[in-house]
Amino acid sequence: MTKLVTAVEDTTKVKTMRALVKEERGFGAVLKEVAVPTPNRGEVLIRVEATSICGTDVHIYEWDAWAASRVNPPYVFGHEFSGEVVELGEGTKRLKLGDRVSAETHIVCHQCKQCLRGQYHICKNTKIIGVDTQGCFAEYVVMPEENLWVNPEDMPAGIASIQEPMGNAVHTVLASDVSAKTVAIVGCGPIGLMAVSVAKAAGAAEVVAIDVNPYRLELAKTMGADVVIDSRHEDVLERVRMMTDGDGIDVVCEMSGHPVAIGQAFEMVTAGGDVNILSLPVKPVEIDLTNHVVFKGVRVQGITGRKMYETWSQVSAFLSSGKVDVKPLITHTLPLERFEEGFELMRQGKCGKVVLQPRGTN
Amino acid sequence: MTKLVTAVEDTTKVKTMRALVKEERGFGAVLKEVAVPTPNRGEVLIRVEATSICGTDVHIYEWDAWAASRVNPPYVFGHEFSGEVVELGEGTKRLKLGDRVSAETHIVCHQCKQCLRGQYHICKNTKIIGVDTQGCFAEYVVMPEENLWVNPEDMPAGIASIQEPMGNAVHTVLASDVSAKTVAIVGCGPIGLMAVSVAKAAGAAEVVAIDVNPYRLELAKTMGADVVIDSRHEDVLERVRMMTDGDGIDVVCEMSGHPVAIGQAFEMVTAGGDVNILSLPVKPVEIDLTNHVVFKGVRVQGITGRKMYETWSQVSAFLSSGKVDVKPLITHTLPLERFEEGFELMRQGKCGKVVLQPRGTN
Amino acid sequence: MTKLVTAVEDTTKVKTMRALVKEERGFGAVLKEVAVPTPNRGEVLIRVEATSICGTDVHIYEWDAWAASRVNPPYVFGHEFSGEVVELGEGTKRLKLGDRVSAETHIVCHQCKQCLRGQYHICKNTKIIGVDTQGCFAEYVVMPEENLWVNPEDMPAGIASIQEPMGNAVHTVLASDVSAKTVAIVGCGPIGLMAVSVAKAAGAAEVVAIDVNPYRLELAKTMGADVVIDSRHEDVLERVRMMTDGDGIDVVCEMSGHPVAIGQAFEMVTAGGDVNILSLPVKPVEIDLTNHVVFKGVRVQGITGRKMYETWSQVSAFLSSGKVDVKPLITHTLPLERFEEGFELMRQGKCGKVVLQPRGTN
Amino acid sequence: MTKLVTAVEDTTKVKTMRALVKEERGFGAVLKEVAVPTPNRGEVLIRVEATSICGTDVHIYEWDAWAASRVNPPYVFGHEFSGEVVELGEGTKRLKLGDRVSAETHIVCHQCKQCLRGQYHICKNTKIIGVDTQGCFAEYVVMPEENLWVNPEDMPAGIASIQEPMGNAVHTVLASDVSAKTVAIVGCGPIGLMAVSVAKAAGAAEVVAIDVNPYRLELAKTMGADVVIDSRHEDVLERVRMMTDGDGIDVVCEMSGHPVAIGQAFEMVTAGGDVNILSLPVKPVEIDLTNHVVFKGVRVQGITGRKMYETWSQVSAFLSSGKVDVKPLITHTLPLERFEEGFELMRQGKCGKVVLQPRGTN
Repeated sequence: MTKLVTAVEDTTKVKTMRALVKEERGFGAVLKEVAVPTPNRGEVLIRVEATSICGTDVHIYEWDAWAASRVNPPYVFGHEFSGEVVELGEGTKRLKLGDRVSAETHIVCHQCKQCLRGQYHICKNTKIIGVDTQGCFAEYVVMPEENLWVNPEDMPAGIASIQEPMGNAVHTVLASDVSAKTVAIVGCGPIGLMAVSVAKAAGAAEVVAIDVNPYRLELAKTMGADVVIDSRHEDVLERVRMMTDGDGIDVVCEMSGHPVAIGQAFEMVTAGGDVNILSLPVKPVEIDLTNHVVFKGVRVQGITGRKMYETWSQVSAFLSSGKVDVKPLITHTLPLERFEEGFELMRQGKCGKVVLQPRGTN
Repeated sequence: MTKLVTAVEDTTKVKTMRALVKEERGFGAVLKEVAVPTPNRGEVLIRVEATSICGTDVHIYEWDAWAASRVNPPYVFGHEFSGEVVELGEGTKRLKLGDRVSAETHIVCHQCKQCLRGQYHICKNTKIIGVDTQGCFAEYVVMPEENLWVNPEDMPAGIASIQEPMGNAVHTVLASDVSAKTVAIVGCGPIGLMAVSVAKAAGAAEVVAIDVNPYRLELAKTMGADVVIDSRHEDVLERVRMMTDGDGIDVVCEMSGHPVAIGQAFEMVTAGGDVNILSLPVKPVEIDLTNHVVFKGVRVQGITGRKMYETWSQVSAFLSSGKVDVKPLITHTLPLERFEEGFELMRQGKCGKVVLQPRGTN
Repeated sequence: MTKLVTAVEDTTKVKTMRALVKEERGFGAVLKEVAVPTPNRGEVLIRVEATSICGTDVHIYEWDAWAASRVNPPYVFGHEFSGEVVELGEGTKRLKLGDRVSAETHIVCHQCKQCLRGQYHICKNTKIIGVDTQGCFAEYVVMPEENLWVNPEDMPAGIASIQEPMGNAVHTVLASDVSAKTVAIVGCGPIGLMAVSVAKAAGAAEVVAIDVNPYRLELAKTMGADVVIDSRHEDVLERVRMMTDGDGIDVVCEMSGHPVAIGQAFEMVTAGGDVNILSLPVKPVEIDLTNHVVFKGVRVQGITGRKMYETWSQVSAFLSSGKVDVKPLITHTLPLERFEEGFELMRQGKCGKVVLQPRGTN
Repeated sequence: MTKLVTAVEDTTKVKTMRALVKEERGFGAVLKEVAVPTPNRGEVLIRVEATSICGTDVHIYEWDAWAASRVNPPYVFGHEFSGEVVELGEGTKRLKLGDRVSAETHIVCHQCKQCLRGQYHICKNTKIIGVDTQGCFAEYVVMPEENLWVNPEDMPAGIASIQEPMGNAVHTVLASDVSAKTVAIVGCGPIGLMAVSVAKAAGAAEVVAIDVNPYRLELAKTMGADVVIDSRHEDVLERVRMMTDGDGIDVVCEMSGHPVAIGQAFEMVTAGGDVNILSLPVKPVEIDLTNHVVFKGVRVQGITGRKMYETWSQVSAFLSSGKVDVKPLITHTLPLERFEEGFELMRQGKCGKVVLQPRGTN
């Protein structure tokens, strides 16, 4: 992280903005005035219209073990956003003032073996905005021009903001052919909920959504799930066996990170099926490789980030064609100053996506 | 073809049935009484509930050059059908009396290199029912058990009958990833019309249907086409350029067989796109390989038949999930004796699928 | 298992043969005279020329927990073999007397969802010869015609016999593109050793063989390994890091079944790489999904059996072109009566493949 | 092309170099002194060690219709080379002085749909060095840092220079799985000859090389062809039928551009096989789509350029592992001033690759 937050009192000349700063190595965050950042060569300055809270932001907010090991306060966090280009750094080529953009949040090196093979999403030297660099929970954010995706003029700012996590959902689901197949979404956080809708749009014959949270299972129905299973009250594997005549699920998308659910994911997949894992379980997980992977000839794929920028074009096509409608997922839109309320909703799982607006409600 | 049609007058003891017989090497066909066939080892007898007319049947009916070179009258033609299993030959294992079935019409050798590689649909020794063997335009038909696909109890007979051509559509469209992409269907005969619907179901962001027949372009809209182009009255390539910002189409499915349309198919495909060809142009076609294939890095795939039986399970999943609705495509349902009317409709292109019922209208 | 071993004393009329019979539910096996089996419809009788010992046979011989739970003595075991067709059952079509054949050992149902999709190798109702049916450690064996692969006239019987396990190696290695890549073979039993050679033949730039057995690491060099690592005496991960400039291995083939080695397999694979697992670990294995699968975007594939019959044609092409030479792997060829010696060699890992000849040394 | 050649007489202060200049819109080229170019931001200056003549250069030299329509004399042409980095432009990051490099010759836009999907090799706005920009038939050349591939210290300059066309061969062959398959190389110019060797390295069971030039067929044998066919004196299709038991070839790489050979390529490919086309036929070609593409279920792929930079890493791995040896292909190494001799050899097809050394023979 090159630029630290410059406190306002240090300078009276710089233009300032409101930003949500992770100030201490502990719980919470502080809304304060900081300097508006300046775009360097190849970068642009964006006026943030909407920003959304990711699970990662909650980890940082709560200051868990992962956060403590990775981020360096004080800094502005947040990485999902959309906004308008208001200043172009030297040497920028593609964007123009006024473009409405969203950001791919992985800043990659272009030099490692993975980048040279075009697998930028698994670049070994990835920096993530709002984690390793200054983030977007602010009125302005600076981004490399390369990382910006231009949105249609008429895309609502909130929807534009959640394209980044929707990209995770699209990347996970489209890692398999799902047309005419059964698909299970294990774990119905916001990305799981988007995955339900993406799977339906991509031709899945039947989509099963599994979670322990009734609020989110209800949202799963709204997003198009054919079957929802509350794993606290139903025998997930028995239910799957019944609905598939004992065959199991063709494509299982694991988005829960929970060891029991992961075990079920591997057990419910049909022989010759796929398990696509986006979740990040906090500890190693026991897997019955012999019976659940080898004898079944199962393919397992680890999914991270978004293919750059193939996934973005898929997200864009799903949204602009109306094949996927994520509006019902934005359950809360709050002004940035009500961030505490937003983080609390996220911590309780009583929400879909929570959008924060640095300039108040439009 | 092992069993010739046994004329009724030759024998008074055999059970007889009405069948549409291609009797002469010339135009037309004759409805007459013939012996009900007997299933050999590994075969079953099916009471035909519905049978549908394919373009191939029209070639045989009209007795064009291809027909004259391939089929050997007198015999019963027709290959698309659904019906009920009424007699099991010796050594059958999977089916039981009363099963409602449709047939994969390619009878394969299991011994050529292609079969040994699991590519049964391109078996070098394929026999096609109703072309190389006795067909299904009759009250009864005999089929190898291996070729029969069991339908859900409640599937209407007409829809069950057209699963075979729908398999061609599914095979063609799903030969590419179409999710979140633009798809063009060039040629809107019945299979093209089904392809429109399959492409939408499989996640295509935008489906363009192209033809010269307004009746069928109207049906294309019903089946879900986002854009229809009448190539007699519009500049197809210009229209495509406009709707894609000059980029071209991601996946082009060529189903017209017309050299001009084929040339356009190759010209409209985007760099890195796919051209999937199901049509059978009657003569070699000139293709600008350098500009339309090599420099664009295009992939061309020849498509024939249906993957056995992966395509059938996809067809089945699309229909039973309701993702694809082919009902609007069955524009005419006639008793078998009105076959001349059915063939005339097909010859004029004033129909979707024409279904014939050997037992009269249900 | 339909036909039990008929003891010779029960009948004086039947033709008899020597066979290795698993007689008791305990250690060992007995060489005795039993009736020559008779081919049923669709089956053929083969005079066994060579048969080879698989690890599975050792489990049965030693009578471990898996064997106790799966096989039903008394019966003839053994499944890898080659021989000559000497009798054709009714209804056979493809083979003729005198054909020299090897056998695909998975007898499949053709009716489950996997079979209908062409994925016979993961048929849910697979029977394995010599496990679920009478086997080939005998002078004669009966097999379904469908399961027999015809060998070139001049292929030595021992090599023809080990094509089945070589098929496992080919299936595992060719599950990934290995051309111009680094490949690690983790576990150098006979299949691992064949995998070394297959990977080289298929274009791997560098093949690393890893094991704890110096005898087999020596064989790995003979089979073409560029680097061999004795994991008892070297830090496997450090060595891999050094030889790949910290990047890791592109394709890891796990053939050890050992939890520590499996952990290393997942750790050594490069981001974007593949882990293909053929081994059958006896217990669930802990895997660090987050760091070794998800963040690295790794693809894991469970491999079992051989693609029917694509893998057989690949094995055949590798052998007849001379791209792969498995001769050095057949370290021991013994007459069937010296089976105890053969099993002892296998138990000690002091061998490549051990071939038994029912008719004595040719 | 931004910088025109600055004639030496215009300035006495600039550093000059010898360069092969296409001066007139007509046959030939001129060796003369021109200014050494200066690297702009993101570019580097390279001292050329070896440069090789491509067929494209011959078109420019001969001034055919394509050349007349595309290039704008006066300018320095040539695009295949290797050399040493001697000056770093502002903002370069990855390279350092002294690095020995080769160049990807496609300079891409990073902004079109294809680039955004990671398909840089089919970028719609590609500029090719030595065609659309100043080239490398000179003592020095300027290149974008992004386009440079760092070679091992000890790679001979001539071999380093021909990695670019070898990339075409690798891209074409590895567009299909060739392991354990039959491969035909139709057209044995230098890239075809490299393709022979790449196919063998990648596991092809049998490689057939076809051409009309005995000199090059002889080189094809040296490069590892199992069968060579002189199509002027042999019936190519009959020979292929015989060697494949009537099955045809699994993967056909078309590198001739000749309409008759292309027709044969499509006729010789087996059902389910691949035709990968790298050649650039000067006119549209008639193809029997029905019989040679559709009924056979053939896949055709247009191949251009090199995947950036996956193909480069494959080329590099093949060379440094010794799997492919291109030394025998460099049949002539001449000082730059003997360029006329080099171009004459190319025009007569009496050579493999011709390497020119701007600094005389090392």
